[in-house]
Amino acid sequence: MAQLTRFSVAPLHTQTRQLAAVASGRAAADLVITDARMLSTYSERISGPSEIWLSGGRIAAIKPLGAHKNGPAPKAIYDAKGGIIAPGLVDPHIHIESSMITACAYAEAALLNGTTTIFCDSHEIGNVMDVAGVEAMLEDARQAPLSIFLTVPSTVPATSPELETAGGDLTPEKIGALFDKWPEAVALGEKMDFVPVVMGDPRSHAIIAESLKRNRPVSGHIYGREFVQPYAAAGVTDTHEAVDRDIANDFADAGIWVFLRGGNPATPWNSIEQAIKAVTELGASHKRFCVCTDDRDADDLLAFGLDWVTRQAVELGMSKEQAWAMGSLHGATRYGMDGEFGGLGGGRRADLVLLNDDLDVQNTWFGGELVVEGKKITPVLDEALSNRYHYPDAAYKTVHVPRAPKLIPEMPGKPVTVNAIGIEMPGITLPHRKIAVEPSNDWETLLEKYNLTFVTVIERHGKSDGGVAHGFLHEFGLKAGAVASSVGHDSHNIIVAGTNEADMDLALKTITEANGGIVVVRDGNVEAFVALPVAGLISDKRVHEVAEETRILKKVWDEAGCAIPYMGFNLIPLSVIPEIRITDKGLVKVPEMELVPAYED
Amino acid sequence: MAQLTRFSVAPLHTQTRQLAAVASGRAAADLVITDARMLSTYSERISGPSEIWLSGGRIAAIKPLGAHKNGPAPKAIYDAKGGIIAPGLVDPHIHIESSMITACAYAEAALLNGTTTIFCDSHEIGNVMDVAGVEAMLEDARQAPLSIFLTVPSTVPATSPELETAGGDLTPEKIGALFDKWPEAVALGEKMDFVPVVMGDPRSHAIIAESLKRNRPVSGHIYGREFVQPYAAAGVTDTHEAVDRDIANDFADAGIWVFLRGGNPATPWNSIEQAIKAVTELGASHKRFCVCTDDRDADDLLAFGLDWVTRQAVELGMSKEQAWAMGSLHGATRYGMDGEFGGLGGGRRADLVLLNDDLDVQNTWFGGELVVEGKKITPVLDEALSNRYHYPDAAYKTVHVPRAPKLIPEMPGKPVTVNAIGIEMPGITLPHRKIAVEPSNDWETLLEKYNLTFVTVIERHGKSDGGVAHGFLHEFGLKAGAVASSVGHDSHNIIVAGTNEADMDLALKTITEANGGIVVVRDGNVEAFVALPVAGLISDKRVHEVAEETRILKKVWDEAGCAIPYMGFNLIPLSVIPEIRITDKGLVKVPEMELVPAYED
Repeated sequence: MAQLTRFSVAPLHTQTRQLAAVASGRAAADLVITDARMLSTYSERISGPSEIWLSGGRIAAIKPLGAHKNGPAPKAIYDAKGGIIAPGLVDPHIHIESSMITACAYAEAALLNGTTTIFCDSHEIGNVMDVAGVEAMLEDARQAPLSIFLTVPSTVPATSPELETAGGDLTPEKIGALFDKWPEAVALGEKMDFVPVVMGDPRSHAIIAESLKRNRPVSGHIYGREFVQPYAAAGVTDTHEAVDRDIANDFADAGIWVFLRGGNPATPWNSIEQAIKAVTELGASHKRFCVCTDDRDADDLLAFGLDWVTRQAVELGMSKEQAWAMGSLHGATRYGMDGEFGGLGGGRRADLVLLNDDLDVQNTWFGGELVVEGKKITPVLDEALSNRYHYPDAAYKTVHVPRAPKLIPEMPGKPVTVNAIGIEMPGITLPHRKIAVEPSNDWETLLEKYNLTFVTVIERHGKSDGGVAHGFLHEFGLKAGAVASSVGHDSHNIIVAGTNEADMDLALKTITEANGGIVVVRDGNVEAFVALPVAGLISDKRVHEVAEETRILKKVWDEAGCAIPYMGFNLIPLSVIPEIRITDKGLVKVPEMELVPAYED
Repeated sequence: MAQLTRFSVAPLHTQTRQLAAVASGRAAADLVITDARMLSTYSERISGPSEIWLSGGRIAAIKPLGAHKNGPAPKAIYDAKGGIIAPGLVDPHIHIESSMITACAYAEAALLNGTTTIFCDSHEIGNVMDVAGVEAMLEDARQAPLSIFLTVPSTVPATSPELETAGGDLTPEKIGALFDKWPEAVALGEKMDFVPVVMGDPRSHAIIAESLKRNRPVSGHIYGREFVQPYAAAGVTDTHEAVDRDIANDFADAGIWVFLRGGNPATPWNSIEQAIKAVTELGASHKRFCVCTDDRDADDLLAFGLDWVTRQAVELGMSKEQAWAMGSLHGATRYGMDGEFGGLGGGRRADLVLLNDDLDVQNTWFGGELVVEGKKITPVLDEALSNRYHYPDAAYKTVHVPRAPKLIPEMPGKPVTVNAIGIEMPGITLPHRKIAVEPSNDWETLLEKYNLTFVTVIERHGKSDGGVAHGFLHEFGLKAGAVASSVGHDSHNIIVAGTNEADMDLALKTITEANGGIVVVRDGNVEAFVALPVAGLISDKRVHEVAEETRILKKVWDEAGCAIPYMGFNLIPLSVIPEIRITDKGLVKVPEMELVPAYED
C-alpha cells in the first residue's frame, strides 16, 4: 500500500458526495464494523448493539445492527463481538522529544494506546536547532502514521541570553513565518515564561500577538494562583499545569481549558489526581477539561499512555463516557477541529478504537486502516514504521563541546554559604538550600559531610566557546560516579552531576562522542547509556528498542542512588520553574530570574 | 464618541500587555463592576459577591469584592448591587430580514435582550439581490452596535430555476469569493436543500466544499430522521430544525450541534419544548446544545428574544448556569470563537449583562460600553442608532411587476381534482389536499363550497416578464378581501391570497408602488400595511416603529380570519419544506421536487 500517513485520508470536502451516497445506501461501504456499542463523545452515552459504516477513511454512518444487509454489500465486515467502538484519543499537549524518539516512532506507541491525533510542541528540538529543528520534526510528523499537529514553540529560549545559552532563538518573526508556512501549526505552544508575560515583556507579547492575530489560540504553562487572572488577560486559553484542585478551579473559571495531566504515579507528573477535584469536588463542569500526557519516558509511553490517563479519570470519579470525551472530543474542540476528530459523527476521520468494558484498547483503526488488533500492531503499520523519516545530517551534529572543560569548581578558601539546589520528591520545584560550608582538604570529604553533589552545565551549541557553570545538588543521593545528559531543559546544554571529576569527564566524553545521550558512569565504567544522536535529544530507533534502553537506564540510575528520576534530572536547568536551577550561565533564582553565585560569604 | 460598532474594541493581540497590567494591578481599570455574582459559562457556577475589571472594552480580571481598593483607582465604578454578571448572549442562527429591519435596527432589540453577538444568514436579501444584497447587509452589520457574523447563504435559490425564479444565484464561485473577501463570513449558512445534498447534487456539494476547504463549518436545515446520517456525512455540523425529541437525539449522536429554537409559543417556531427532551429525558449531554431564535417578527423580537429562550431552557429543566452557557458560550464554541465571546474569561470582549435572579436582563454592556440600563437604551446607544447605514439605491428598486398580471385562474370546464395547499396549525409543513371540485358559475360560490382561497405568486425580479402561478389554499380562513406580501421565502416573489380579484389587484398594487411590503386589503380598502422598501424585505425604520407596525398588521391579519400568521403565510412558497408549496412556476411537491398542476382530472 501507499505510505500510511494522515494524508492517506482525502480531505472531507472532496468526499462528501461519496459519503452521502454510502450513508444513504446507494454505494457500498469500504468497511462495516458490526455488533458494536457506540460511545458517543457528543451525547456522552453508549448505545446498544449497532454498526458503523466507513468509506474513504471516514465515517459514513452509524446504523442499526444488521442494516448493511439491506443495501450494497460492504467491501469488508469486521465483527466487534459486542465491544465498544469509540473515537481515537486526541492528546492536546505533548512533547515528542521527551520520549526521546522520532515522530514516526512515537506513532507506534500512540496507536497502541488508541491515540490517533496529537498536538505536539517541539520546543526541545527548537531550542537546539531553531526553525530548522522544528521543520525537520514537522517533516517527520508528515510521514508518520498519526495525525500530528504543531503548537508552535513559543518560548525559545525559555528565558534570556543573560540567563542561559540556547541553540535556538525563535523570534516573533520566525514564529509568524512558521504559522504561515505550515498549515498544521494550529496554535501557539505553551508560553512558559509566565512571569514575563504577566509583567508585560514586549517580546513575549509580540509572540502571543503573532498567534492571536491569525486567530490561533495560545497555550499556557503557569504556576501560582496569583498569576491566573493576568495570564488569562494576556490571551492564554489552556494549561496543562493545573497541579492542584484550587488552581484547576481558578483556571476553569478564568476561561482557560484545563488539560489534566496524568502519568506514571511514581513521577511528579500525575497531577490529574488532584486537579480533577475541581470537577468532582467543586462541581465545575467537565466540558472544558481534557486529559493529556505532556511528557513521557519511552517505556512509560507504552504503559501510561493517554488511554491510561483516560481510565484514571474514571477511577477518579468521571463516567466512562465523560472520561472518553475528555480524552478525545474536548481536545479536538479546544482547537476548533471537532469536525474532523474526536467523535463518531458522519464525515469525521475513521480514527476508531475497539474497547472492552474497562476501556482497554483492543484495536485501533487509523483513517479506516486497522493498525492495531488484539493489542498488537498489524503488518500494515509495521511496514509503515519501517519506512521512517531520516533527519538531515545537521541534526546529527549538534553537540559542540571544546576539549576538556573544567567540570568541578575551585575549593572555597574560607567558610561560605553554598546556594545549593535542593532535591525534594515528588515536587517539580527545586528548593533553594543555603548551606554553611567549611572548606576541606578534599572535595570527597566536603561533599559527603554536607550531602552535596557536583552539578555542572556545559554549553553545547558552540556559541560560547565552552561556557561552564558549577553548582551543587543537595541530597541528590548519587553514591559514586557521575550521571549526565544532553537533554537539559530547555536549552539542552549538557548537565553532569557527579562525586568526582574523572567519572564526570567520562560521562561528558561518552555523550559528546555519540552526539548526545544520557549516561551513568561509575569508577571509570559506562554502566548505562542511551544514545540520542538526533539533536542530542532523540534516538532514531523504534519505540520498543528505546523503551528497553530506557528501562535499563532507569534501573541503573536508581541503583546509583539518584533521588530523582532522569526526567526530573533533565529539568534541573529549566529556569522557569521555582526555586533555583542551574544553566550554563550559573545558578538562577525563579521567579526572580536572577543569577546567584554558587558560594556567598 | 466615535461610532459604536464591534470595531470599537481593538483586537486582543494589540491589548494583551495593557490587560495583563490591569489584571496585575499595575494599571488602572477603565471600569470596575463591583458587588456582582459572576455567572461562569465555563464551569457552570455562580460565584459569591466579587468584581470584574474592564480595560479597552475587554475583561481584564475577576477579583474578590473590594480588590480594586488596593490598587490604582479605576476610572469608573459601577455598583451591581448584588446582581448577576454574565456574558452577553450569542445567537448562533438568525435571519435579520425576518424581523423586517436592518442590521443596525436589529442591534437595538438584541442589546435590550442581552444579546451581543449574532451569526446571521442573510439569505433572504441574497435571494433578492444576489451578492450585492449580502454585501450591503454586511456593510450594514459593520456599522451596527453589535457583533454580527455571517453564515454565508448557501442555498440561493432554494431550489432550481425550474421550480422557482429567484433574484439571486449564489454559485460556488460567488460563495468562495464571499468567504475570501469578508473575514466575518465564518461559516456556511443553512444548507436548506437537504434532499439534493443527501442525493449527491453536484452544485450543493460544490458549495459545501467551498466552506470545508477553508476550514469553515457548514450549517444545516433538515427534516426527517432518515436523512440525519447522510446529511452529517455530507459535512453538516449544526441544525436549528430539531423539531422533536427523537430527531434532536439523533442529531446529538451524529455530532451535529443542536440549536434549540425558541419563540412565541403562539407560533410553530417554539420547538425547544420538544427538542430539549433529548437532554432532559434521554440524557444527552447539553454541551453541544445551544439556544437560538432563527426568525422573529419585529414585535416578538422584543418580547421573545434570546434571553426569553434561555429562560425557557430553565423552565424546561436546565439549571440557570447550563441554560446561560447554552445561550452564550456554546454558540461561540461552535464557531471556534470562545476566545472572544461567551464567557467572563480574561481577554474576552466585555460584552456583559446584569441579570436578576430570574435571568431577566437589566443592563447590557457592549465592548465595555453601557448600552442598556434598567431595561432602557442609554443615550450612547441612541446616538449610535441614529447614525444608521443607508442601503444603496438599487436596494430600493427590487420589485419589478409588469402591469396587471392575471391574478386568478380560469374556471375549470369540468369536474377536477384540485391540488390544494392545506393549512394545518401549528405545523410548518403544509399538507397536500386533493379536493374533488365541481365547476360553478362563479368563483365565490366555488371557493366557499370547498373552503378554498386563491393563492397566486407573481415573479418580481424582472426575469420572466411577469410569470404568475395560480393555486388554492384549503381552510386558510380569510373571510374576505386579500392579503399579500413581497416576503415570500425564499425567492421572495410576491404572494397574494384572496377571495376576489379586485382586492388581490389592490394588494399587489400597494406592494409594487412601495417597492415592497405586507398588506391586508378588504372591499377596496388597505386595512394594514407595512412598507418594506429595502429589497422588498426590510423597513428602514427603527425597531420599535416596525414592531408597532407589525403589531397592527398582525391584529388586522387575525381579524381577517387568516388561519396562519403572516410569517407562516410568507413561507407558503418555500419549496424545501413538505408537502406542497407554490412558487411563480406553480405548485411544488416536497420532497419529490416535482411540479403538479392546480387541477387534475
